[in-house]
Amino acid sequence: MATEVQTVVCYPPNPGPNWKVETTKVLTSRPLQENELRVRMVASGICHTDVFVSCIPGGVAGLEYPKVLGHEGAGIVEEIGSGVTTAEVGDPVLLSYTYCSNCDLCGVSQQPYCLDWHVLNIVGDKTLQTAGGDHIQAKFFGQSSFAGESIVSEQSVVNVKGTVNNEELKLLAPLGCGLMTGSGAVINNAKAKPFDIVVVTGIGAVGLGAIMAAKIVGVKEIIAVDRIGHRLEVAKELGATQILESKPDTNLTEELQKLAGGGRISYVFETTGVVSVIQASLEALGKHGKLIQIGVPSMDAQLTLPLYPLLSQNKGFECIYLGDTTGQEWVPKMIQWWREGKFPVEKLVKFYPVKDAQEALHGMESGVAIKPVLVW
Amino acid sequence: MATEVQTVVCYPPNPGPNWKVETTKVLTSRPLQENELRVRMVASGICHTDVFVSCIPGGVAGLEYPKVLGHEGAGIVEEIGSGVTTAEVGDPVLLSYTYCSNCDLCGVSQQPYCLDWHVLNIVGDKTLQTAGGDHIQAKFFGQSSFAGESIVSEQSVVNVKGTVNNEELKLLAPLGCGLMTGSGAVINNAKAKPFDIVVVTGIGAVGLGAIMAAKIVGVKEIIAVDRIGHRLEVAKELGATQILESKPDTNLTEELQKLAGGGRISYVFETTGVVSVIQASLEALGKHGKLIQIGVPSMDAQLTLPLYPLLSQNKGFECIYLGDTTGQEWVPKMIQWWREGKFPVEKLVKFYPVKDAQEALHGMESGVAIKPVLVW
Repeated sequence: MATEVQTVVCYPPNPGPNWKVETTKVLTSRPLQENELRVRMVASGICHTDVFVSCIPGGVAGLEYPKVLGHEGAGIVEEIGSGVTTAEVGDPVLLSYTYCSNCDLCGVSQQPYCLDWHVLNIVGDKTLQTAGGDHIQAKFFGQSSFAGESIVSEQSVVNVKGTVNNEELKLLAPLGCGLMTGSGAVINNAKAKPFDIVVVTGIGAVGLGAIMAAKIVGVKEIIAVDRIGHRLEVAKELGATQILESKPDTNLTEELQKLAGGGRISYVFETTGVVSVIQASLEALGKHGKLIQIGVPSMDAQLTLPLYPLLSQNKGFECIYLGDTTGQEWVPKMIQWWREGKFPVEKLVKFYPVKDAQEALHGMESGVAIKPVLVW
Repeated sequence: MATEVQTVVCYPPNPGPNWKVETTKVLTSRPLQENELRVRMVASGICHTDVFVSCIPGGVAGLEYPKVLGHEGAGIVEEIGSGVTTAEVGDPVLLSYTYCSNCDLCGVSQQPYCLDWHVLNIVGDKTLQTAGGDHIQAKFFGQSSFAGESIVSEQSVVNVKGTVNNEELKLLAPLGCGLMTGSGAVINNAKAKPFDIVVVTGIGAVGLGAIMAAKIVGVKEIIAVDRIGHRLEVAKELGATQILESKPDTNLTEELQKLAGGGRISYVFETTGVVSVIQASLEALGKHGKLIQIGVPSMDAQLTLPLYPLLSQNKGFECIYLGDTTGQEWVPKMIQWWREGKFPVEKLVKFYPVKDAQEALHGMESGVAIKPVLVW
């Protein structure tokens, strides 16, 4: 309750993310509820969703400033609520999103589509406060892990005691969102098979998660698309069999079909949210192909599609979250792959001390850091 | 080989379907191949796909005139090829679509998306000829069941010996396409659950198949939409809990949400192919809802969608064929439901003698007959 912590506080956009590192000022604001834990952070990945949310003006959809973001946390449990069974004090934990466990969709293992998802993950709760007593919106994704210490929902917690040591926590912090989202999309949603040709548009952590998973499945071809050449080099290192550096005048449909060598493109894992990329790659899909939309488009984006070819080619378009899985189910699988050398997270991660949060953010924007991780 | 049969021959469109009943003129044109059967037709349902294909000008996508359509056949086996194991001479059979059994997608039980689907089902083969020896394009959907006798692919055959008597064949002829498509979409693709609210747009045989299946699943609400009131009465009789007679000025999104009573619309089974209906019902879908496109749109239809709400609400849009199943798998289930009174096909079917094929066609267009069946 009284521990002072170093925290990245997000203020109203200017118009980009307006993050300030406030040292020794932010406290947890109240006693734990039954299914909450107090976690001391060791590290927290920065994800595009942190950036996206930081750019939304106040007053929209229950968002309030100042707030504490962060949703790829790793830390040590310091205190547990009376009903918590997932972890004990001292356990190392990785953090993911939260869900209600009670709604129709949670009841059929569709927790990424929990009917309370927005309230629980985006709106959050005032669980942090300044030393002066001002309340700060937190519990983002059930965790607000851009704080040295935070109140966390039990549904966000993956207990890794016995499988991950405290030093490894830093490296594995990002498993709970982007990497899970990409790899889960390939395996849980697409259920990709060895005969599939898959395309991944946008090579950030989500795209690379998809590439690593597609390689694990052993698909026939993995075509990686990005505007930035050195990201494509990482894609190749992690499993892409073909790369396409797209320029403003690239005819994406044609180039993808060429790279597929006349084969049938089964899936596109779309992480850019850019309308022209979505349209062109939907067109490039072969029979019964599916575009899995993961990247967030701009709020006014309009998609125009010729309908008849979609039907006659039996195509699909689906917008999914979080790899159709939960942290509890998926994080242990990724840890196992990582230990087997199939999920080399270390090739994506770049560490930054918390005080350099703004620099880490710029590193992600410029492409210097595919997955920046803040270290406490 | 020498039997003369009564046949509905389809000539180039004028611009609607140009069907002529040619009596005692059309013959099967060659000996059976290894995996073919010669079937004497008892009855054949007329489906919108017959109409759609009849309206396509010649020279497109391997289509040739004259041809024999028909893909909801029922009949008696008269002869079998040397490799046929599915049926023996004298067995009663219901006919569905065909597939190659060898491609990647057939190999993972995705036969409706067989990579040779178009060639096998739409293009067909010259297995019929006039008495004068002119060849006629046939084997439509592996069957061309608008002929008193036809050469049929083994993959199109569902042997119903012991479960359906010869008199019942007439009534059950339509099981192989429209009713399978609608009911399979609900159960195999959507995997609808009791908590789901489903919308069915367009109340033909496909829509009613979806409604009967949704009632079998026991979903929470079934909302039926059509422009024709008496079709909606049938929908109600078969299980719709809410009906909406849409007018040109209906705000479909609002009306659907009203009928859902604030609940979450999980699935739309779209059988009209009309762009405005597709757009409005996609918008009406609730969180993680999916629109399952079954109806064939016009060839120049353009769908424009606001992308951000699709992603933030995790919606999906998928174009499917044939209920994601095969005749062999699904027809026996529908027969069982029919015997249990849960799939009252008799409420949709109107019989016509073959000589009145053109009248049957008009009956379907005007709404007098939801499922016209030609009887030999």
